[in-house]
Amino acid sequence: MRLLSQTCESLCAVKLGLPLMLTLGLKEVSQILTHSKDLSLISIADVKLNDIENTNLAVADTLWRMGFDALIISPVSGHDGSHKALIEAAHSRGKGIISLCYMSHPGAKEVYGAALENRHERMYEKFMRYAAMWECDGAVVGATSVDIIRRCKRLYPNLDIYSPGVGVQGGSAKGAVTAGADYLIVGRSIVAASDPREASEQIRRSSWVG
Amino acid sequence: MRLLSQTCESLCAVKLGLPLMLTLGLKEVSQILTHSKDLSLISIADVKLNDIENTNLAVADTLWRMGFDALIISPVSGHDGSHKALIEAAHSRGKGIISLCYMSHPGAKEVYGAALENRHERMYEKFMRYAAMWECDGAVVGATSVDIIRRCKRLYPNLDIYSPGVGVQGGSAKGAVTAGADYLIVGRSIVAASDPREASEQIRRSSWVG
Repeated sequence: MRLLSQTCESLCAVKLGLPLMLTLGLKEVSQILTHSKDLSLISIADVKLNDIENTNLAVADTLWRMGFDALIISPVSGHDGSHKALIEAAHSRGKGIISLCYMSHPGAKEVYGAALENRHERMYEKFMRYAAMWECDGAVVGATSVDIIRRCKRLYPNLDIYSPGVGVQGGSAKGAVTAGADYLIVGRSIVAASDPREASEQIRRSSWVG
Repeated sequence: MRLLSQTCESLCAVKLGLPLMLTLGLKEVSQILTHSKDLSLISIADVKLNDIENTNLAVADTLWRMGFDALIISPVSGHDGSHKALIEAAHSRGKGIISLCYMSHPGAKEVYGAALENRHERMYEKFMRYAAMWECDGAVVGATSVDIIRRCKRLYPNLDIYSPGVGVQGGSAKGAVTAGADYLIVGRSIVAASDPREASEQIRRSSWVG
């Protein structure tokens, strides 16, 4: 809570992950989100959801009850019988769905970077195509691969790109934004900083593309 | 808790999903798992985990604190910087990792069934290869695709196959086991039955391959 109050001026949203949510459960997460709403911060649940329709809907329902505005899916489970119903239900409630298209760590190339036989596309290009086709509200593309951000933005200029991996993981704020990232996702470089307010403000400033 | 006591004679393990875990949080899930241990049931966390190393380790740590014996990963995030450290840490604590290789719903074919350029393999074959290479303790392959179970078992006979999708989703217990499934994962057909004890016992009996 204190961290949110300290850094809210440099942020436009807060993303919570599974470790915190699993530890605290519905009631305590709701309290954090009430606080973030008071600070005018949008909230995103980073669950990288990839289940069958029935389970996706139940997870989303729990997250909306917690107070989240959007959630992150992994497109690996596909549309039919998985994300189709989830995205429709989310949009009918004014909630957002952001699809994970390329991750920020070295192993991302093993599957997200795999070459496919059809259309001669890479898996991340297929995931971007899905994100656009499924009418997702954004795509996650790691800041550690600026060439991939550039390609994704060129292919789907209307899809907002959320870019993690700035700082501790080696990505540069300015590099990602210059390549086409619309939002930066920063975790440890702020959370673990001795002065989180200063750290968040510094990243905000360095990401400015004049 | 009552459901577990009623059905434990027909089960060898209990699998909990994210909806329940997110709602209850660490303390209450721990209580359920203490009860399942008293009934000699192994417990599996179905989180289809697919994050970077740091987050995977934090989620796993929370799940082991809850009392789980094993967790399910989605291999989409790869090994390097994602599942490698998770699997090593789990095994050093005597915990199990089961990797999701082919799902039970129609949309599974969109990505799990995709044809890859390298080795002319399908994505699920790559995932099975990874599960074996990464020394996972089992693979999930949907009961609704018996041909794929058969192929996975033929390719990796030493890897236990856990098969969901029996009952409500249309898979047959006997069909899956005949094709090579080692364990059946059954949810709604037991949980939503008017007599869960009888439903679980019936599935157990029908899965017997003489």
